[in-house]
Amino acid sequence: MPQRSANIVGTEAGGRRFIDALLAPRSIALVGASDEAAKTAGRPLQFLRAAGYEGTIFPVNARRDSVQGERAWRSLADLPEAPEHAFILTPTDAAVAAVAECAAAGVKVATVLAAGFSDAGAEGQARQASLARIAAETGLRILGPSSLGVVNGRARLVLTANAAFAEPGLPAGGTFVASQSGSLIGALVSRGKARGIGFAGLVSVGGEVDLGIGEICTATLDDPGIDAYLLFLEGIRRADDLRAFALEAARRGKPIVAYKLGRSAAAAELAVSHTGALAGEDAAVDAFLSDLGIARVDTFEGLLEAPALLRRTQPRRAASRVPTVGVVTTTGGGAAMAVDQLALRGIDVAAPSEETFRRLAAAGVEAAHGRIVDLTLAGTRPPVMKAALDTLLAAPEFDLVLAVVGSSARSRPDLAVAPIAASLGATKPLAAFIVPEAPEALRRLEEAGVPAFRTPESCADAVGAALLRRPPTAIARPAVAPALPGSSLDELEAYGVLGRLGVPHAPAVALTIGEPVPAELPFAYPVAAKLLSHAVTHKSDVGGVVLAITGREELDRAIRDIAAAAARHGVSAERVLVQPMRAALGEALVGYRVDPQVGPLIMLAAGGVLTELYRDRSLRAAPIDTETAWAMIAEVKGLRALEGYRGRPAGDMEALAQVLVAMSHLAGLADPGIYEAEVNPLLIGPVGQGVEAVDAVVRLKDNTTTRGDEEGDR
Amino acid sequence: MPQRSANIVGTEAGGRRFIDALLAPRSIALVGASDEAAKTAGRPLQFLRAAGYEGTIFPVNARRDSVQGERAWRSLADLPEAPEHAFILTPTDAAVAAVAECAAAGVKVATVLAAGFSDAGAEGQARQASLARIAAETGLRILGPSSLGVVNGRARLVLTANAAFAEPGLPAGGTFVASQSGSLIGALVSRGKARGIGFAGLVSVGGEVDLGIGEICTATLDDPGIDAYLLFLEGIRRADDLRAFALEAARRGKPIVAYKLGRSAAAAELAVSHTGALAGEDAAVDAFLSDLGIARVDTFEGLLEAPALLRRTQPRRAASRVPTVGVVTTTGGGAAMAVDQLALRGIDVAAPSEETFRRLAAAGVEAAHGRIVDLTLAGTRPPVMKAALDTLLAAPEFDLVLAVVGSSARSRPDLAVAPIAASLGATKPLAAFIVPEAPEALRRLEEAGVPAFRTPESCADAVGAALLRRPPTAIARPAVAPALPGSSLDELEAYGVLGRLGVPHAPAVALTIGEPVPAELPFAYPVAAKLLSHAVTHKSDVGGVVLAITGREELDRAIRDIAAAAARHGVSAERVLVQPMRAALGEALVGYRVDPQVGPLIMLAAGGVLTELYRDRSLRAAPIDTETAWAMIAEVKGLRALEGYRGRPAGDMEALAQVLVAMSHLAGLADPGIYEAEVNPLLIGPVGQGVEAVDAVVRLKDNTTTRGDEEGDR
Repeated sequence: MPQRSANIVGTEAGGRRFIDALLAPRSIALVGASDEAAKTAGRPLQFLRAAGYEGTIFPVNARRDSVQGERAWRSLADLPEAPEHAFILTPTDAAVAAVAECAAAGVKVATVLAAGFSDAGAEGQARQASLARIAAETGLRILGPSSLGVVNGRARLVLTANAAFAEPGLPAGGTFVASQSGSLIGALVSRGKARGIGFAGLVSVGGEVDLGIGEICTATLDDPGIDAYLLFLEGIRRADDLRAFALEAARRGKPIVAYKLGRSAAAAELAVSHTGALAGEDAAVDAFLSDLGIARVDTFEGLLEAPALLRRTQPRRAASRVPTVGVVTTTGGGAAMAVDQLALRGIDVAAPSEETFRRLAAAGVEAAHGRIVDLTLAGTRPPVMKAALDTLLAAPEFDLVLAVVGSSARSRPDLAVAPIAASLGATKPLAAFIVPEAPEALRRLEEAGVPAFRTPESCADAVGAALLRRPPTAIARPAVAPALPGSSLDELEAYGVLGRLGVPHAPAVALTIGEPVPAELPFAYPVAAKLLSHAVTHKSDVGGVVLAITGREELDRAIRDIAAAAARHGVSAERVLVQPMRAALGEALVGYRVDPQVGPLIMLAAGGVLTELYRDRSLRAAPIDTETAWAMIAEVKGLRALEGYRGRPAGDMEALAQVLVAMSHLAGLADPGIYEAEVNPLLIGPVGQGVEAVDAVVRLKDNTTTRGDEEGDR
Repeated sequence: MPQRSANIVGTEAGGRRFIDALLAPRSIALVGASDEAAKTAGRPLQFLRAAGYEGTIFPVNARRDSVQGERAWRSLADLPEAPEHAFILTPTDAAVAAVAECAAAGVKVATVLAAGFSDAGAEGQARQASLARIAAETGLRILGPSSLGVVNGRARLVLTANAAFAEPGLPAGGTFVASQSGSLIGALVSRGKARGIGFAGLVSVGGEVDLGIGEICTATLDDPGIDAYLLFLEGIRRADDLRAFALEAARRGKPIVAYKLGRSAAAAELAVSHTGALAGEDAAVDAFLSDLGIARVDTFEGLLEAPALLRRTQPRRAASRVPTVGVVTTTGGGAAMAVDQLALRGIDVAAPSEETFRRLAAAGVEAAHGRIVDLTLAGTRPPVMKAALDTLLAAPEFDLVLAVVGSSARSRPDLAVAPIAASLGATKPLAAFIVPEAPEALRRLEEAGVPAFRTPESCADAVGAALLRRPPTAIARPAVAPALPGSSLDELEAYGVLGRLGVPHAPAVALTIGEPVPAELPFAYPVAAKLLSHAVTHKSDVGGVVLAITGREELDRAIRDIAAAAARHGVSAERVLVQPMRAALGEALVGYRVDPQVGPLIMLAAGGVLTELYRDRSLRAAPIDTETAWAMIAEVKGLRALEGYRGRPAGDMEALAQVLVAMSHLAGLADPGIYEAEVNPLLIGPVGQGVEAVDAVVRLKDNTTTRGDEEGDR
C-alpha cells in the first residue's frame, strides 16, 4: 500500500493519544502469534513485515522462543518495554487474561481478535463485562472483541488477520472505513482494488466493548489525509459518540456514508446473534442516521462508490423541492435503466428547460427534446459530450448531472472518460454510470475524481443518498440513556402532562363510580365514558369504554357496566372519565418513545386500522422543529386525504404540526421522565379549528434502575 | 466465438424458414456498406470476416465498386443471386426504398438498422406503415427498424453494427437473447465475457414492425443448443406471439427471464420516446409476465446471472407457502447482506430444523443453532463446506440452498469452488453469492454450472424471481385485440350484464322523473336515489346522488333535486335508480379492463380513499380461477381488516373470490364486448352473508373501429 501523505495520524509532537497507538503505534505486541504464517494468528506478523512496518514488533508466544524466524517472548511481562499496541490473537478462553496483562504492562491499546463475548450467552456476557471493567479501571483502551484489527497504509500498519491484506498493490485513498463486521472489510478492499478505490485506513471495531466507531472516527478528524468516512453497521452502539462525530465531521465538510444491515427483520435478528449487537428497529436507525446527516445506502456496491460522490455533494437543507438530475447519454436504453432506478428512489430526472435546449443547440449539440439528452453516436466525440455536460452543469434546473456512457467506455476508455473528467468542476456534482463492462474507464474516472458507478442500481442508490441527505439537525439532542418502562399515568394525568407542552385535549370530567351522576355536565350529551386507571392502557379490551351516551340515565348505566366489566377482568376501578363525543375531519396518531439505541423518537401516523396495516408513518429523532414536523406530515400518505385531496375539506395541519413539535419536546422533560407517550386518536378539525386528543397514554421511566436493555415495545 | 454445437439453427434439410435466413443465412447483402471498417455501416463486414462467416457476402454501395478491399455491387438488382438476408445500413431516408428492393429481389429477411420510424412523429409513422405494408404484401420478413442486427456464434454469424462484437474470445453459452434495446446487447455481451457467461445467439428486435420477440424465439425452440431465454423489454408488443412462445417454452422446460424498463413512470415515458413502444402500465406488464411464467428481474446484473439459476429451478405451483432458503456461509456479515435482500423480496431464510442440525453434527459440521449455518473459518475446508451443503440440500425444509463465500473465494478459488460444484445436483437448486472481488471463483462456478452472484442485491433478485415464478396459467386467454372505448351502460344495465356472470347487486328499482313515487317500494326505507344515465359515470360529481332517504316525501324531493342538478350540468335526466341503504363490514373495488398491450386484466382493491392513496391493489391477466382469486385477496393489505384482523368480525371473502372470478370472465363475453367495468363499492357482508354491488360502471367496446392505440384510462 503506497504512502499517500506524509501527514500520518498521530505523529504530531506532544503526548500520544489512543488514536496514535491504535493507528500508528511505535511498537506492537502480537500476543499468541503463530509460527505458521498462513494461520490466522500468524498473519499479522507476516502482513506487517510485508508492508514494511517500521516500528518494533514483539511476537509473544507462551511455548516458543521464535516465531516465523523472529525472536519471540514467552509473555508480555518479559518484554523489554511496554508496547503501544497489543493484538491479542489467543483463543477466547485466554483473551481476558491477556488483556489484563496488557493493562498491567502499560500497553495503551489492546485489540482483541477472539469472538465469544456478548454474542455467546451468559458466559460470554461475563467475559465482555470483564473487558469493560479492565478498560474502566486501568485506562487501557480496548478494540473489539471480535476485531479483525486495523490497517493504516500511510503508517505501513497492516495489523490484521484479514486475508484480504495479503495482497500487494492495494490503492490508497481518502476514505476511512469503520466496520462492525470484520470480514466485510476484506470485501471492500478487494472490490475497491479492482476499481482503483483505496482507503486512508480501516478499522474492524468488533463488539465495541470500549472503543467505538464514534470515538475512533472523531479522533481522526484532524487527519488531512482523510476526507470521507465509510461505516458498515450491524446496529447502533454509543449513539452519543456517533452523534458527536457526525456533527463535527459535517462542520468540517467530511461526508459519512453508512450501510446498515437489518432492513428486514430476519437480518436484524442475524446481526444480533452474529455480533451481540442490540437489534434496533430499522426505521429508528434510519431516523437517527438521517438526523445526523449520514447518507445511508442500500446496496453494497453503492457503499463503495458513494464516497466519491458525497465529497462533491453538499447536504440539501430544504426538503421543499424534489432533487433533480439531468442525464446526458450515448445509450438510450442504458440511461433509461438509471432513470428508472432514480425515479423509484424519489429523484426526478427532468427534461432540460427550453433555455437549456437553446444553449445546447448554440454549443453545437443536436439532441431531441426529451427527458434525457441522448447524443447517440455523436456523444462518442469528446467535444460534443463535453459541450453537453457543461451546458447541463450550468443549467439552474439540475442538482446533479449524470453521464451514462455506452460501448465507447469499453472500446475507447480514454476518449469516453476525457470529456467527463474535463467537465468535472466545483459548481455542481457530476457522476457517471458506465453501461458495459469497462474496468479501464472506471479506473480512469476514479483517478480523475469522477464519481463512477457500475450498475444502474448502485448509481441511483448513491445519487439518491447524496441528494436526499440533509445537514445534521441544529436542535440539541439529549444524551441517549437507555431507560426501563415504569408506571403508567391514567388518561387524565396523561392529558395533564401533555397539556403542559401545549397538546390540546377534549374537555373531560372524572366521575367516581358509585356516586350519582351530576345533573349537569360541563358539556352537552352525547358523551363517552372510559375507565380511568393506571393499570389498563387498552381500555376497550376490558370493556372499559362506552360511546355515544345520550343522557344522564344512560351514563349512569354505562358507568355501572364499566365497573362490572373491570371487576370481571380483575381491575380495580374507582373512576371513569367522561368526554363529549366529537366529530372531526380525520384523525392521526402521534407517538413518542425513548429508543434504547438511538434515544428519543417522535412518530406520526394516520389513525385507524388501515394505517396500521400499511405501516404508513414517519419517524424522527426528537425534539423536532416546525419545518421537520411539516416534512413528517408530508411523508404520511394517509394524511393526504386531509390536505384537500379530491376536493375534500382540508384539515388543520398547522395545529397538527404544533402538536408534533410539542410532543417531541417530551425528550427535554426532566420531571417526570417520560418513557413513552401516545395520543391516539388526535382528532383533526377543519382549517383554523385545531386538533384535540381524545385518548392518551403516558408511561414514565422507571426511576428505580438506571440502565436497562429492554426495548420500548411498539 | 467458439462453436458450441454442430446443431446450428436452421441447417436442417428441407425448406428454409425465416429463422434460418435470420440466424444462419447462406448469403448476406450489406446494403449501404461503408468502406471504412470503423464506421457503423462498415462494422458488419469487418465483424463477419473476423468471425469467419462461411456464407457469401454481397457488399452493396451505390457509389463504389469495392468496399474494404472486397468487390461491391451498386444495387441489390445487380447481385448475381438473391441473398437470404439483407442488412440495410443506409440512413433513414433511403431505408424504405432499400427494403422494397429487397422484396423485389427475393430476399427472405431484411434487417433495418436506421431509426426514425414509429419513434419519429407523423413522418416516421408513415415510414413504419410502409415497412409493414411491404412485409404484408410481399412476404419479406423484416427485423427492426432500429435493429443493431443478429449474432449467432454457432453459425459464425456476427451480423451487427454493435461494437461490442469487435472483440475476440467471447464465450459460448445456452441462453438466447432478444432485446428491444440494441445497445444493451453490447453491455450484456461485455459483462458476460468478464464472467465467462456466453450466449447461444442474440437478436436486436428494434421496433418489431414485422418480426417480433415471440415469433423469433418460438422459431428457435427446436434448437437443442438453446436452453434458456433472456429478454430485455421496453414495452410489450404482439402479446399473443409472446404468450404462445412462453407457453411452449414452459412445456419444454426452457425458462425465460425478462428485465423490463418502466418500473417508474419516468422510465416508461422514456421507453416510448426512445423506441416508439407503447408505454403500458407497469403493473399490467407484471401481471402479464407472471401469468406466462416469465421470471422478471429488477437488477441489470441479475438479468445476466439469472438464467443459470432458472435452468435449475422449477416453477412453484402453490403460492401457499413462502419460499424458503437455507444459507451456509464462511462470512456472517456477507450472509446477512444476502438474507436482508432476500427477506425484502418475500423470501424466508429459515433456520435448519433440529433434525437437520443433528445431521450436520453427524456429518462433522459444527455450527451454532441459528438462522444461517455459519461455518466461519472451518468452512474454508472443502469437506466441511461440502458436508454442510449436502445436508441442507437433503433437508426437506428448504426450496433452495445458498452458499455465501468470503475471502477464500479470492485467495483460493479452487478450494472455495470445489465443494459447491461437487454438491450441485439435480434434486434442489444450489446457488452461490461471492462476497469479495473474486472473478476467478465466479468464472469457475459458471463453468461448473453453479448459479453464481456478484452482489447481494442481484443474488436476491434472481433467487426471488426464480422461487416466486409460477407455471404459466392453464386458463385459455383471449387474443389481445386493442379496443377503443364505446358507449357506457347505465347502472341498471350494468347490473344486468354483471348479473349474467353471477355478480350480485343490491335490490334496485328505477323511477321515472316527474311521475309520482309509488306508495310501496320493493324494499324498506332508508334508501338511496341515484341519477340513471348513460352519459354520467361519476354521478356524485353532478349532484346525482342522495343518500339515507327516510320516506316517500323525502324521496320525491330527492328525485326533484337530482333532476334539477342534472339540468344545471346539462345532463338529460329521465330516471333515477332507488336502492336500499346497506350496512356492511367493509368494501372492495373490483375492476376489469382490456389493456391495449397485454389484453384483459382483473383488478381488486380495498375500497375508499386511503386505498387509492396507497395504490393497494392486485392485478392479474383475465380470466382467473378461484385459486388466483384467493391469491389476489391475500395481496391486498387493506382487506386484512376483513379477515379477522385483531378480533374484528370476518367478511365473506369466499363470496368476494367468486365475484372476482365472475368479473374476470367478462374477457370471454362476446356480446356485448366489454371495454371496462368497475364495481365500486362491492359491499362485503359477514361470513356466509355474501357480497353485493351498490354501484357499477360498464363501458362497451367501440364496434365502429377495429383497432386503436388509446389506452384504457384508469
